[in-house]
Amino acid sequence: MSSVARAGAVVQVYFDNASTSYPKPEEVYRATLGALENLGGNPGRAGHRKSLEAARAVLEARETVARLFNIEDTSRLIFTLNATTALNMALKGLLSAGDHLVTTSMEHNSLMRPIHGLEQNGVEVEVVQCDIEGRLDPGALINALKPRTRLIAVIHASNVVGTINPIAEIGKHARTRGIPLLVDAAQTAGSLPIDVEADCVDLLACSGHKGLLGPQGTGLLYIKEGIELEPLIEGGTGSSSEDLAQPSLFPDRYESGTLNTPGVVGLGAGVKYILEAGLEKIRGREVKLTTLLLEGLNAIEGVEVYGPPKAEERMPVVSFTAKGMDPASIGQRLDDEFGIMTRVGLHCSPAAHKTIGTFPEGTVRVSMGYFNTGDEVEYFLDSLDSMLKR
Amino acid sequence: MSSVARAGAVVQVYFDNASTSYPKPEEVYRATLGALENLGGNPGRAGHRKSLEAARAVLEARETVARLFNIEDTSRLIFTLNATTALNMALKGLLSAGDHLVTTSMEHNSLMRPIHGLEQNGVEVEVVQCDIEGRLDPGALINALKPRTRLIAVIHASNVVGTINPIAEIGKHARTRGIPLLVDAAQTAGSLPIDVEADCVDLLACSGHKGLLGPQGTGLLYIKEGIELEPLIEGGTGSSSEDLAQPSLFPDRYESGTLNTPGVVGLGAGVKYILEAGLEKIRGREVKLTTLLLEGLNAIEGVEVYGPPKAEERMPVVSFTAKGMDPASIGQRLDDEFGIMTRVGLHCSPAAHKTIGTFPEGTVRVSMGYFNTGDEVEYFLDSLDSMLKR
Repeated sequence: MSSVARAGAVVQVYFDNASTSYPKPEEVYRATLGALENLGGNPGRAGHRKSLEAARAVLEARETVARLFNIEDTSRLIFTLNATTALNMALKGLLSAGDHLVTTSMEHNSLMRPIHGLEQNGVEVEVVQCDIEGRLDPGALINALKPRTRLIAVIHASNVVGTINPIAEIGKHARTRGIPLLVDAAQTAGSLPIDVEADCVDLLACSGHKGLLGPQGTGLLYIKEGIELEPLIEGGTGSSSEDLAQPSLFPDRYESGTLNTPGVVGLGAGVKYILEAGLEKIRGREVKLTTLLLEGLNAIEGVEVYGPPKAEERMPVVSFTAKGMDPASIGQRLDDEFGIMTRVGLHCSPAAHKTIGTFPEGTVRVSMGYFNTGDEVEYFLDSLDSMLKR
Repeated sequence: MSSVARAGAVVQVYFDNASTSYPKPEEVYRATLGALENLGGNPGRAGHRKSLEAARAVLEARETVARLFNIEDTSRLIFTLNATTALNMALKGLLSAGDHLVTTSMEHNSLMRPIHGLEQNGVEVEVVQCDIEGRLDPGALINALKPRTRLIAVIHASNVVGTINPIAEIGKHARTRGIPLLVDAAQTAGSLPIDVEADCVDLLACSGHKGLLGPQGTGLLYIKEGIELEPLIEGGTGSSSEDLAQPSLFPDRYESGTLNTPGVVGLGAGVKYILEAGLEKIRGREVKLTTLLLEGLNAIEGVEVYGPPKAEERMPVVSFTAKGMDPASIGQRLDDEFGIMTRVGLHCSPAAHKTIGTFPEGTVRVSMGYFNTGDEVEYFLDSLDSMLKR
């Protein structure tokens, strides 16, 4: 018996960090609650102390998050409800009929669904096929560019198999061609280094509640200077109130209405935790766990693992199937009998499952985070093995 | 000296509840933190226990909030980031070029700014002028309707002077004409009864963090059966993942991406608190405080109060100016010298200030909530009086 499953204790192993990370650092709980209890004012809405305190706390969070991505002008970092909203803001704010968009066959529905809508309104979409392990060939992407390509949109790493895309390589090429690059970093932010300057990222969208360790209800969009987005949501911003037109001031232009102040402050605490731990340490632990997991899964008879074979090429997100048992049953039994939480099915990414050959049945996905342990991986492997042997 | 200002104690009086309510009930802090610490899963995204627990908690919050507004089909209650997002979803989801919209001269920028954008895209907007106290004449609104009027959009009560609009009267007329009614209840939800059935409200948008006592980062949109809105945000919903088209299922169609689970659970706790206290009690206390405030302000020389004279005709939101002193200075000194937090300026509502004759200087706004006390009102009146006398 693994050290996870102590006699009498109820085991719970959370392996669904690609959906949302859990647990969060204690600092995140404290910061969120502290904001809720003490920063009662509405940031940017009044001159009184509680509004100013809230505004200062939001600014501090903005600066902390900006530091992680090397965003110099912090006002160009927009807080949103989630990564999906950020992606919609970028895509719908930039593209209009006649524009050409290049993307990949590994994208999440958070990108595919708004693109599907845009396509019906006259945007031409070219989807570059990735290989069966989810790998994008940058050359193929570059070949797909046209003179009227208005945007390249690429997932930084797959939420199904964790395959990492070479965004810096794509970014540098895109920059020389003058085509903006939108990166969906929902699976990588907080683990892999992302430097919007060095990597030539023009639009960066990501969740706040996954690798960034913030609360659910947070996401972000970075908009590089020079990129003009039509605001998707307009309204009160506490600035230029006399003007009926949406203000041009950043971040106000894209942050209409009251922010999720406690969430944003919690997100700031999550990113502070990451900056203090260091990406290298976080990534190192994730690679170690992924290596252990991949080796173990490959050793179990009848299990097929998808995605790149090496942990270094992927995030700690591993999809597998097992002969003779459908993914839903495996997931259900892992939870019921062993207290292991995975996510089965299509993971909101039908295109990715088509690419890796697991559509429409899907896979069982194990997605780990910084707080998972080697013991948990071993307990999972033992559990799966014993389940499949029965 | 009022009982608020005890010797040696630092006085803080929060009179900016129309921006965001503060404090929240203890139950809201506990529920939000509890969700963050214990409901770690992503609701609707997996079959494991933590995802299901989160989904159940969100459903419970949805049912609680629906009860307050007599929304029978709770799936038609959409959780959003804020009221602004809800209004944008309603307006931009419904209206297109050639449509006619009727609204009022007391609307907030959260409505006026998206409308301004729609107007530039071919939507015809008719703004019905309200009187100097912010009162809407329902007859004038009805006269403004045309055969191609596609929507009536009305603020339930002004965020500047608190004037309450007769939404049920408007709703009943709109229903006979077959024109949908959108109500912005940011200032009234949690204080005034709103019954979407009896009041014939087709679209109800409101904040979660004002009178509903939830955390910032929450808002809602109710969409009556039969009202078709194009989704503003598309993406992963955890449902019909194989389909690139946005699902038609409610609430998923309008809730793409991860929800603000802790915020929504906190909002549920806020509304539960309201349902237990009872709207009559809450409204009663607010009317009492408003009466005290109006009487006191009217008795101070040089002070001009805007809006209806009777507390019963308005929300606990009172705007005033004082001879010889600009609103910004009054607000600043109330905060610096007396610890009283108000909001000065245009309150994101230039149209309303034009209507009441206080544009562009604005007013000082005192906005109270259920947790304010008569002692605080008296302390404020004493403070203002002494300040103006100096």
